[in-house]
Amino acid sequence: MIRHIVLFTWTETATAEQKAAVTAELRKLPDLIPQLRSYTVGADAGINQGNHEYAVVADFDDTDDYLVYRDHPDHQKVIADYIRPILASRAAVQLSI
Amino acid sequence: MIRHIVLFTWTETATAEQKAAVTAELRKLPDLIPQLRSYTVGADAGINQGNHEYAVVADFDDTDDYLVYRDHPDHQKVIADYIRPILASRAAVQLSI
Repeated sequence: MIRHIVLFTWTETATAEQKAAVTAELRKLPDLIPQLRSYTVGADAGINQGNHEYAVVADFDDTDDYLVYRDHPDHQKVIADYIRPILASRAAVQLSI
Repeated sequence: MIRHIVLFTWTETATAEQKAAVTAELRKLPDLIPQLRSYTVGADAGINQGNHEYAVVADFDDTDDYLVYRDHPDHQKVIADYIRPILASRAAVQLSI
């Protein structure tokens, strides 16, 4: 299994509406990209200081399925239209488990 | 459920032995901290450039259980003795799901 993990921070000018739209748009992807076996997205819970602001955890059967998701036009459109305009920093790892 | 996610990069001087010891020590924690419901740790799979180098994904029933793990002496000892000596940067999020 491949577990894809990405954490974001947002720009200081990002609005609550823009942040909420990221979640709304990402949550459409499991219906569009059947390779997604599990998909957890959302804002940081606010338990600790100094955290990143947003997380995506996506599980796939294998690397090929992850690459379908990574390069899928519907995913790329969410990145281009909703994430990149408010993105300050990004940290990612893919785990083979 | 609380999903705790943390990504690390290591210092340039970190050795393969030091990196492997992080995994070996973290994998002892589920036997020591019963609040851990699911625990996935490991090095980046090398699929993409520019990634962080290591990921931990830990699931808990609730915030209280996560805090037991966060502050547990056995966990803190792994951080102090194995992670912090080779830590270059850290990104974390807790998701409430």
